[in-house]
Parts: sequence; structure tokens; C-alpha cells
Amino acid sequence: MDRIPLETHLRSLLPNDGTRDALITSVIPRLLQSIAAVADALRESHSVTAAGTANTFGDHQLNVDVTAENLIRHAILDCPSIVTASSEEDPIERPVHPPDSPSPPTEQYTLAFDPLDGSSIIAANWTVGTIFSLWDGPSALNQPPSTGQTAAILGVLGPRTTAVVALRVPNTSSLSSSSSQPVQTCFELYLDPSTATWHISRPQPTLSPRTTYFAPANLRAASEDQAYMSLVTDYVARRCTLRFSGGLVPDVAHMLVKGQGVFLNPVTAQSRAKLRRLYELCPIALVVECAGGKAVDPVDGGGVLDREVGDCGERGGLVCGSAMAVEEAVGRLLAGR
Amino acid sequence: MDRIPLETHLRSLLPNDGTRDALITSVIPRLLQSIAAVADALRESHSVTAAGTANTFGDHQLNVDVTAENLIRHAILDCPSIVTASSEEDPIERPVHPPDSPSPPTEQYTLAFDPLDGSSIIAANWTVGTIFSLWDGPSALNQPPSTGQTAAILGVLGPRTTAVVALRVPNTSSLSSSSSQPVQTCFELYLDPSTATWHISRPQPTLSPRTTYFAPANLRAASEDQAYMSLVTDYVARRCTLRFSGGLVPDVAHMLVKGQGVFLNPVTAQSRAKLRRLYELCPIALVVECAGGKAVDPVDGGGVLDREVGDCGERGGLVCGSAMAVEEAVGRLLAGR
Repeated sequence: MDRIPLETHLRSLLPNDGTRDALITSVIPRLLQSIAAVADALRESHSVTAAGTANTFGDHQLNVDVTAENLIRHAILDCPSIVTASSEEDPIERPVHPPDSPSPPTEQYTLAFDPLDGSSIIAANWTVGTIFSLWDGPSALNQPPSTGQTAAILGVLGPRTTAVVALRVPNTSSLSSSSSQPVQTCFELYLDPSTATWHISRPQPTLSPRTTYFAPANLRAASEDQAYMSLVTDYVARRCTLRFSGGLVPDVAHMLVKGQGVFLNPVTAQSRAKLRRLYELCPIALVVECAGGKAVDPVDGGGVLDREVGDCGERGGLVCGSAMAVEEAVGRLLAGR
Repeated sequence: MDRIPLETHLRSLLPNDGTRDALITSVIPRLLQSIAAVADALRESHSVTAAGTANTFGDHQLNVDVTAENLIRHAILDCPSIVTASSEEDPIERPVHPPDSPSPPTEQYTLAFDPLDGSSIIAANWTVGTIFSLWDGPSALNQPPSTGQTAAILGVLGPRTTAVVALRVPNTSSLSSSSSQPVQTCFELYLDPSTATWHISRPQPTLSPRTTYFAPANLRAASEDQAYMSLVTDYVARRCTLRFSGGLVPDVAHMLVKGQGVFLNPVTAQSRAKLRRLYELCPIALVVECAGGKAVDPVDGGGVLDREVGDCGERGGLVCGSAMAVEEAVGRLLAGR
């Protein structure tokens, strides 16, 4: 089977009126390249483990985080249309390019990223991830995520290097009869290590409405949330399969590969919200919605992408995945309050 | 900090009377090399995913399994002292070398291996593993595992390539005053991808008797085993951390890195034993015991290594990890029968 080159695939999906040329030829390819660089850095960063203690490996994790952060910051310097960036390691929106740059680009994007997600499992050599969230305009803040967030990319750093790209782009083509319909799609890629090139592996992963898999994050919360405990014991009673790595990116990647799943991260008084809305919840929600699933904040039952992000530090809960399973889970969690 | 070369480390641990020279200079290094080769093959085996369907990826998994099997079978041809081998892919003990080989080696080992453990999570790009079990003599069968199994090696195929080596070798040195004490130890290694060499990263990981982590495999069994269900809900009530990848090797690697953990794989009428005693239970148990933990068959409460393997296809349950946590869990599972 012929491999589909990335640019060919992107051109087949996005408006062909020139309004997204930088996204197609510069932004998405460069971000994917940076995922390959992070994977290489992680694979080569063994030596610090030789210090031997858990604490020292804690420092090592930090080193790897910083390395990933720097690689990505360096990579986006080549993208004039990424005008603003912030990250979980440095959660303040700042201009990417100096103010004396040439004339401003016609496409302007803001990048929010988590360079290395999965700090609790990286020492054990489990799969971790890199998360990118890309927004139209010079800021991600105070605009509706459901229309402002143009793309999300998840880099899956495991025995192979794979990725998921989700796109939700207004169709601006004046030639199209369906100009009001946004492009909404996602696809999976793999990195060929011999040529350092990305190829499409699955053009449209889709989540079925129901599922027999469950991923109960923050399970400690079930010690004080009877509704969560009863939900989990019901999954077991129904003989659903537990599949939860503790890493948000591998857990979502698993869903997409199986075509089903429900990921639960409820919030209680003692188990506070940990997931950041800008760096984790919004991009994950875009991927899940572009695969036909749902992503809901279990605190109020609202869609993750229906509320603006007002501050880079905002946190929240998450229930996402197969649509009917998400609705059932959120309904039961809300009813238990 | 200076890196410790593998052979230096092995010589510091094993009898220096020449009785284990092949183990030190040939068998363990060659098996570790084959893990590196499997990791490379896995990383490069992306293209088949392009076919796009779960079924086709199922075939792909099989292809990767076969590739790993072939790489390991090829590697051990260079080790005259590995006289017999069998694997989960081909579970029959056969001679490794042709009968017209030169005079038989003074050291004789039997290798049992699982080339790629974790078939249900490999498509999602989660960490998987390679398992080696090494026995003294021309067969692994019908001898006490607690003394017959000389070594176990786990290859952890994740974003990095790491490994665990466990050794239990009778101390034959006539110069040693403690000649009756076997050498019993384990250590962790990482693969430096730039030089393709293995280095010691932790000389002696140790499992504490208690733990706040739990890994409930075969959780569906709790739907018909009230003792298992109550054990799991008690872990949650005590606010223990769920950490279970669904891959035996990454789950054990996680324990060793955290220095604690309990892995549960009970057996019930509807959820039959899946783990193979020769290719999974015995080597995992050796690693866990060499790190100071326990590995018990939850069906009868006996030690995994206290019962001979009579047939390559034998299966069983497993509870392993932090010693007191294993005792508590097995006690409750047995009481519930």
C-alpha cells in the first residue's frame, strides 16, 4: 500500500484557498518534527538514571521536561505564523518572535503545549506523550474553544513514535457549497525512524458510542465519591476491561486504536482537579470530538470546549470517550452530588 | 558518575571460579543484545499499521511477534552453552545447535522466552516487553524452579529501552566461606542507543514489604469473586494508587522503579488462568524474589517457584510484589473461596 505523505493528506482536508497554507506547509510539519526530536531526546536520556535513587530520577524527569520544552521552543522559531506560545512548564503567553520581525503573517496562531505529559510513569519507562493545542489568533484565552482551537496534536512516545492530529477549521472556500461547515477530522501518523518522516497510518479513527473499556483516573476520589465507586464496580460487574496507563496521551491513543473507551477523571473535595484546561483538557477534547466522541467537565456536565479559557493555569475534571458511555458516566456522577 | 560495564558488574556478582564464564561473557550479553534488536524491529515496524483496520493490525502484531521470535532464535545460535530453547510462540523444548556440534560445553543452559509480551496493548503504542528465563541443564522441565532457574531477564520496550536482570546462582567457589549461599540479586540496565551498549542504571532495586500501589489484572474476575472485588475496593478506600498497564513486564518494571507494588492476577471459573508458568510466571517470580518481594499462586497459596514445571504449556495465576501486601491479598483471596 502506498504511503500517504503528510502534506498531500492535509491539502485534501483543508481549504484550498490559501488561507491555511502556513498551517499545512509549516506549522503542523514543524510540530510533528519536534515530537520526533523529543522522542530521540527521551530515548537518549538514560544516563541520569545511573545516579540510582528515586529522588535523583525526579531531577532527571525535570531535565527531560526541560529538554523537551527547549526543543519545542526552538522548533517553533522556524514558524513565523506561530506568533504566541505558552506551555505547562512556562504557562504565560509570550510572543514567539521579536517585535522587529518582518510584516506580520496573514495566518496567526497561538500554541499551548505540554512538552512531556506523564511524569509519574516516565521513570518506569511507560509510554508518555507530548500535547499541542493550536488556536487562531494572537491568544488562546477568552475565545470559544469550540471554534477558536484549530488543531490539536498528540505525540505518543512509546516503543514506536506515533501521533494523532485533530483539525477543526472553518471552511472559508468561496467555491465550496458547504462553506459554512467546518472541516472536522482526525488522523493517526507514525514516524519512520529510518527516514525521520511521518506517514498517515489511519485516516479517520472513530469512537463508537458504547464501549467495553474503562480508564478510571484519580481513582482515589472514589473513596469519598460513592457515585464514582459505584460506577467503577458496575464496569467490573459488566466485565468491562480496565485499561488505564496513568498517562493522558497513551490513554486517549488506546481509545482511538480500539475505537472505543471511556476515560474518567472526576473531581472531589480531597482529590482536586489536576488537569490543565489549556494544555490538556482542550486539546484532548478536540481529538476526542474529532473522532466522534464527547468530552465533558464532570463538575457541571458542560462540554470541555463550551467554556472559554480565562487563564493559562485553569484546571478541571474530565470524562471523555465513547459518547453514550460519557453521558451515562457524567449523569451518574452528577446525580451522586 | 562512571558507567559500570555489564561484564564488570557480572564478575563482581558471580562465582569467580570459571563455572559461570559463559553466562557472564556470552549468554547474558547476547540475550541483552537481542532485546536491543527487538526494540529496533518494533520501532521500525510501523508501516503495517497503514493498512488501517484492527484486524490487519492483529496480523501486524503477529508479524512483530514472529520477527522478535526470529531475532532471538538467531541470536542464541552464537551461544554454545544455550543448548535447549522453547518460546511462547513455539512451546516445545528443542536443541539449539545441531547434534554434530563440537564437544559439549561445560556450562549448559535451557532458555524459555516470550519474545513480545503485551499483545493487547502493542497497537496502542504502549510499553511492552521481552521475557527470558534461563535454567541450568538441558531442560527447564521437572526440576525445582527455586534452584533450577539461574537467571531471568525482562526487556522493557518503551520510549527508552531498559532491562532487569535477576540472578540466582549457587555459590560454588571453594575459596568462599559462604559457599552454601546462592548469589541472589537483580539489577536494572539501560540501553545507550548511540553506542548500542547496555549500562547498569540501578545495582539493586528493592521492594518494600508494604505498598500504596496496586495493579489489578484480570479485573473481570472480580465480577464473580467477591473477595477480589472487596480487595480492590479496599485499596481504593485506603486511597492506594491504581497503576496497571496490562503488560506484565511494564507492570513489574513500575514496581521496581517505585520500590513497591502488588500485582494481582487471580483465577476464577469464568476467568481462566492466562499466564504461562514457564514463559511468564517463573521469570517474573525470580525477578520479584531477587528484589526482596514474593510471588504466589493465588489458587493454592504456594510459591510460584516451589512447584516444578511439568509441561511448557502450564498456566497459572499470580499475586506478586511487596511481601506483606502479597500475603494479605492471597490470604483474602483464599479465604473467599
